Amino acid sequence: MGQNPTAHGYSSGMPLHEKALIQRIRRQAPGGSSVVKGIGDDCAVLRVPPGHELLVTTDFTIEKVHFRRDWHRPDAVGRRCLARGLSDIAAMGGQARAAFLSLALASDVPQKWVDRFMTGLLSLADEFHVPLAGGDTAQSPVGIQADIVVVGSVPRGKSVLRSGARPGDQIYVSGELGGAAAALARLAAEQSMGREASALLRPHPRLAVGEWLRRRGLASAMIDLSDGLSTDLAHICEESHVGAEIDAEAIPLARVGQQKKLVALDLALHGGEDYELLFTSSQNVPARVAGVRVTRIGRITQASGMRLLDPNGRMRELQPQGWEHFRATF
Amino acid sequence: MGQNPTAHGYSSGMPLHEKALIQRIRRQAPGGSSVVKGIGDDCAVLRVPPGHELLVTTDFTIEKVHFRRDWHRPDAVGRRCLARGLSDIAAMGGQARAAFLSLALASDVPQKWVDRFMTGLLSLADEFHVPLAGGDTAQSPVGIQADIVVVGSVPRGKSVLRSGARPGDQIYVSGELGGAAAALARLAAEQSMGREASALLRPHPRLAVGEWLRRRGLASAMIDLSDGLSTDLAHICEESHVGAEIDAEAIPLARVGQQKKLVALDLALHGGEDYELLFTSSQNVPARVAGVRVTRIGRITQASGMRLLDPNGRMRELQPQGWEHFRATF
Repeated sequence: MGQNPTAHGYSSGMPLHEKALIQRIRRQAPGGSSVVKGIGDDCAVLRVPPGHELLVTTDFTIEKVHFRRDWHRPDAVGRRCLARGLSDIAAMGGQARAAFLSLALASDVPQKWVDRFMTGLLSLADEFHVPLAGGDTAQSPVGIQADIVVVGSVPRGKSVLRSGARPGDQIYVSGELGGAAAALARLAAEQSMGREASALLRPHPRLAVGEWLRRRGLASAMIDLSDGLSTDLAHICEESHVGAEIDAEAIPLARVGQQKKLVALDLALHGGEDYELLFTSSQNVPARVAGVRVTRIGRITQASGMRLLDPNGRMRELQPQGWEHFRATF
Repeated sequence: MGQNPTAHGYSSGMPLHEKALIQRIRRQAPGGSSVVKGIGDDCAVLRVPPGHELLVTTDFTIEKVHFRRDWHRPDAVGRRCLARGLSDIAAMGGQARAAFLSLALASDVPQKWVDRFMTGLLSLADEFHVPLAGGDTAQSPVGIQADIVVVGSVPRGKSVLRSGARPGDQIYVSGELGGAAAALARLAAEQSMGREASALLRPHPRLAVGEWLRRRGLASAMIDLSDGLSTDLAHICEESHVGAEIDAEAIPLARVGQQKKLVALDLALHGGEDYELLFTSSQNVPARVAGVRVTRIGRITQASGMRLLDPNGRMRELQPQGWEHFRATF
């Protein structure tokens, strides 16, 4: 073990590689009114509004599991790393207060890669006014491992959980689905990240949509679409002890390519990484929320299990087939 | 990338290895009044007392960097993983509210290793009544990477920072120093972890000491000794814009081995991993706080830099030589 080669709060004795990174973070990390004390002590000190509860989410981003250095642009990896955490806050109807990045790097990772990763991450942080308030750095024996923590808040008792869906509720999604899965399939075929794949893999966490729904009490249950519609809907059904029926023709399919071709239904049903919101409501929800399209795609049922009304008018069983379905891609 | 092979809040579609882990965590994780909603949603929901600020700390524990599977006992690795975070909360004078574990495992890591790692981690969580409220799991292409997040709280404005030391303040440490470094040196020599090394590498985060000092307003600055006295004292000096003089003979040396031999001064000065508290005070501090020995070892000076009064009565310059000094061990 020798001694501890990591930084506590980005400040300890460490290799130059890490020092450069931390100086960059200190210089570029956006400030924020929630952060009383950021990088440079044993802990970050945060303030949340009186009467609020805390939201905490953590997400790994691991080389050769979540991305490949030879396929993915480093700024896209950085953006996605933070987007995953922000999307989880959105799915609770919360406001993001601060982010923390733990980053382990092998000594052969070029400084330029790290710089571009940080550019992608910090530009998204800036877009959502989320300060990077701390984290950890370490040497990695091989490759790149990042862990993002996002802390948010929500008025006490107002979190939108997965467990609140009731029979008769309508099922809605924000945005369009399947675009990220289509881009990933193309990435696998072309083995590099063109402009289109970059755009499709540029998630926009739906914080404004989630907060709007929570403020109006419109969402009875909510989750973000990270693993794919069929898998994430199964989580709502499981936690709410209900079933669901989805109308295949209602699912808003993403358009890809120069011909703006609609993606295949399977990509929208089972592809992940869209980072849209899936929610249920007992009320009518507007077709646009916070500037984002919202589409009704089905209903919650008392009968357990998930069913799909296919385009031919046949009802068939819908199995959760999220990331596992596409696993062979990688 | 395929799809996302990780759990969001320990719940997504995932390999059986991860499922078993999560079931174990759900079953064994201690509850806690701070946790409104734990594992099983997009975020954990936490409550902190009114008028409190939040403390957040993250720390990596990476195989071949922080531990070796062939040297370290898995329960000791798990205990240390959480201890690092708890110790950071102690150094702010805070109370630990909840922990989050992100754990990436290669497919060749035996389930038994993971079980014993979790036993070590959860028994420490239990000891300090800190609920494990969430995290993430992932496949790792190689080895084991863990990231621990601890969330704590402290009454508003009462955090003990590194920046509060003033010339004339006395410098104190809790416990004895150098024991962990001695154990690590022995580990490197014997290449396995005997009973004694286990005991010396069994950190006891000083939460009660930190909180006692904070409540009485006794500590002007505080840090935990993770990287070694010389390095961690340098952090206080840097953040407080002061210097320090240490009396070598006053440093409380750990006793090791069957003969209870005092460790070498260098191990106490530069060895890390002791997880004791180093703090400054303008007042007299009792020789025991919360059942733990507290020793005055020097004073803060206006003159910058660190100096050591050695056992021969000579004053010499003291350089921060924390983990780097011992790096060759590993």
